[in-house]
Amino acid sequence: MKVAGTHYRTIWLNEDGWSVDLIDQRWLPHDFRVENVRTVEGIATAIRDMWVRGAPLIGVTAAYGVAIRMREDPSDASLDGVWETLHATRPTAINLRWALDAMRATLRPLPESERAAAAYARAAEIADEDVELNRAIGRHGLAIIKEIAARKKPGEPVNILTHCNAGWLATVDYGTATAPIYLSSEEGLPVHVYVDETRPRNQGAHLTAWEMAGHGVPHTLIVDNAGGHLMQHDMIDMVIVGTDRTTAHGDVCNKIGTYLKALAAKDNSVPFYVALPSPTIDWTVRDGVKEIPIEERSEDEVSLVWGRTESGEITQVRISPEMTPAANPAFDVTPARLVTGLITERGVAKASADGLLDLFPEKAAA
Amino acid sequence: MKVAGTHYRTIWLNEDGWSVDLIDQRWLPHDFRVENVRTVEGIATAIRDMWVRGAPLIGVTAAYGVAIRMREDPSDASLDGVWETLHATRPTAINLRWALDAMRATLRPLPESERAAAAYARAAEIADEDVELNRAIGRHGLAIIKEIAARKKPGEPVNILTHCNAGWLATVDYGTATAPIYLSSEEGLPVHVYVDETRPRNQGAHLTAWEMAGHGVPHTLIVDNAGGHLMQHDMIDMVIVGTDRTTAHGDVCNKIGTYLKALAAKDNSVPFYVALPSPTIDWTVRDGVKEIPIEERSEDEVSLVWGRTESGEITQVRISPEMTPAANPAFDVTPARLVTGLITERGVAKASADGLLDLFPEKAAA
Repeated sequence: MKVAGTHYRTIWLNEDGWSVDLIDQRWLPHDFRVENVRTVEGIATAIRDMWVRGAPLIGVTAAYGVAIRMREDPSDASLDGVWETLHATRPTAINLRWALDAMRATLRPLPESERAAAAYARAAEIADEDVELNRAIGRHGLAIIKEIAARKKPGEPVNILTHCNAGWLATVDYGTATAPIYLSSEEGLPVHVYVDETRPRNQGAHLTAWEMAGHGVPHTLIVDNAGGHLMQHDMIDMVIVGTDRTTAHGDVCNKIGTYLKALAAKDNSVPFYVALPSPTIDWTVRDGVKEIPIEERSEDEVSLVWGRTESGEITQVRISPEMTPAANPAFDVTPARLVTGLITERGVAKASADGLLDLFPEKAAA
Repeated sequence: MKVAGTHYRTIWLNEDGWSVDLIDQRWLPHDFRVENVRTVEGIATAIRDMWVRGAPLIGVTAAYGVAIRMREDPSDASLDGVWETLHATRPTAINLRWALDAMRATLRPLPESERAAAAYARAAEIADEDVELNRAIGRHGLAIIKEIAARKKPGEPVNILTHCNAGWLATVDYGTATAPIYLSSEEGLPVHVYVDETRPRNQGAHLTAWEMAGHGVPHTLIVDNAGGHLMQHDMIDMVIVGTDRTTAHGDVCNKIGTYLKALAAKDNSVPFYVALPSPTIDWTVRDGVKEIPIEERSEDEVSLVWGRTESGEITQVRISPEMTPAANPAFDVTPARLVTGLITERGVAKASADGLLDLFPEKAAA
C-alpha cells in the first residue's frame, strides 16, 4: 500500500535483479527504513530479529533467502543447508516451514543450472499469491462494508474497529483484516478505522496506525479499554480482526484481547468479522478454548513500553514497580458463537463446522 | 496500609501538630516521596497538580487546607476565601465541594478563637470517617472472599481481578475495591490479585501494583487485554472494582474498560463486584449508559506513555505516529445486569433499584 504517496510492498526484488529490499519494521512508526539484504545471513537476521513479522511475510522472506543461496551455490547440500538455517530462525512459524518446503519441492527435481532462476520465480510467485489471496479476502469484506454503508446516510463513514496488526505489514500487501478497508478506500467508499493500540506490544499503535496514516485512511487510535464504550454508543459499525489460527468449528485464536471485543460486539449487536486466508484454518482442532495452547511471552513486554522520547530516542520505559511480576498470555480464543462471519478468499463462511465445510467441501473427507 | 513494613495513610498531621504530610503520588511507582505542606497554596497545588487524587483523599486534603488557613486567620472572610481557593483547584470534584461545605458548616457558627482547633478536629474526623467507611466495605467484601475460599482447596489463594486504582492511595487508607483484599491479608486468608494496567493512565501498573508490592500482597500485573482469557481458563475467582458513580438502578460508571471485564465475567460465570461508599450513588440517575456524560480527556494520554528509563529518568514516550489522532473516553458504564453485587458500607446490595433501596430505605421517599 502507500507510504506518503508512493506504493510499497513489504518486500521486493532490488533493481539489481537478485538482492532483496524490505521494510525494517522495528523502527515503525517512528522511522521508515528500507534495508537491502544480500546474504542468507541477512535474511536470517531479518526474520529472527523481527525486521519482518506476520506469517505470510516471513514465508516470502525465507523464499527469497533460498533464492539468494541458490545463486551462490545451487547444490543439494546448499539447498538443505539453507532450509535448516532459515527454519531455525523461527522454528514454530508454520508458514516459514511451508514456504521452505515449497521452495525445496520446486528446486530439488531441477538441474543445478536452472535452480537459481526457478527459485527467484517461485519466490515471486509466493509473494504474488499472497497479494491475490488478500485481495480476494478484501473483495468479500468490501461487499459487507458496502451493505453497511447502504444503511448509513450518504457520505457518512463506516466505522470499523480493528485489533492488532493484520495489515499489509504482516503480509506482502493489502493485509488480511485491512484488505476490505483498503479496497473500500480504493473505491472511494468512506471508512473510518478505530485502531486498538493492542498492548502489550502495541502493534495497533505502532503498525496499523502507521499503515492508515501512510495510506491516507481516516483513523483514530484508542486504548484497548475503549472499544466497549464506543460500541455502547453506536460509534462502531463493524469489527474486523485477523487470526493466527481458526478451528474447524470456527473458534478464532488471535491476539490477546480479541475475545473482549467480540463480547462487546455481541452485547451491542455489532457485527464481528474475522478475515483469514484458508491456510490458517486448523482442521484438526475443534474447541479452541480447550485445545489451543496459548504462548506465554516475556514479562518485559508488559512491564516495559517502547516509544520515542521527546529528544527522538527510541527506547523503553518501565511502567510498574520492579517488585511486581507480570503475566503475558499472547493470544486468546474467541468462541465461534461470538463471530458473525469468517471472511476467507472463497467468500464469507458462518463460524461453524458446517459453515466452513460449505466453503471448503474438500475438507469434509478428512 | 504498609509501605515496606511501615504503616502509612495517604495524608496525616505532621508531628508539629499543624502542618500536613502527604504522599506525592506523581512519582509512584518509581519514587516514594512524602511532602510536608505548610500553606493553603501548597494544599491547592497538591490537589490541582494531582499529588493526591481519588475523591475521598481530595476531600480530606482540602479539609486540612481549611484548617491551616484558620490557624493563620480565622475570620469569616478568610473562611470564604479558602473555600473559593480550594474549590477552584478541581471544580468538578463533588467530594471536594462536600468537604469544603462540611468544614464551613462546622466553623461558621463558632467564635473565631475556637475555629482553628475545631477545623483540625473536623478534618481528622473526616479522615477517620473515610477509613471507617472503607473498613466497613472491607468487612462485607471479606465475607464474600471467605465464601469463595471455602470452596477452594485449603491454602489455595482466591484470585481477584481489579481494574484501575480504587486502592488506599485513592482514599485515606484501605481503599474501596482493595479494602476486602487488605482485610483478607490481615486475617491470613490467601489472596492473589491480578492487576489490570489500566490504560491510558496506567493507574493499575503505577498505583495498585505499588500498593500490593508495598503491603506484601501476592499480585501479578497484566495488560487490560488479558482478563477475558484468564477467566476462560478459571484463573479468576472474582472481580472487584471501584466506581466513580453508581446510578439508582445499579449501573456502574467506572474507569474505561470496566465494562469489558464485566462482560467477560458474565460470560464465564465469574462473580463481578463493585465496592462503593454510598455517597457515590447518584440517586437522580437511572440509565447510566444513556444519562451519564463521559469525560473525553487529552489525546496525549493515549499517544504518550509515562515511565522510567533505564537511566532512571521519569519521562514519557510516544507510541504512535505523529499524524495519528486519538480518542480518549475516560470512563464507561457497566449495566447493572452484569454486576453480581454492590459492596457498600451497609452490606452487599443487588445491583438494582430494589436492591439499593433495601439497604438505603431512606432514599425511597426521594
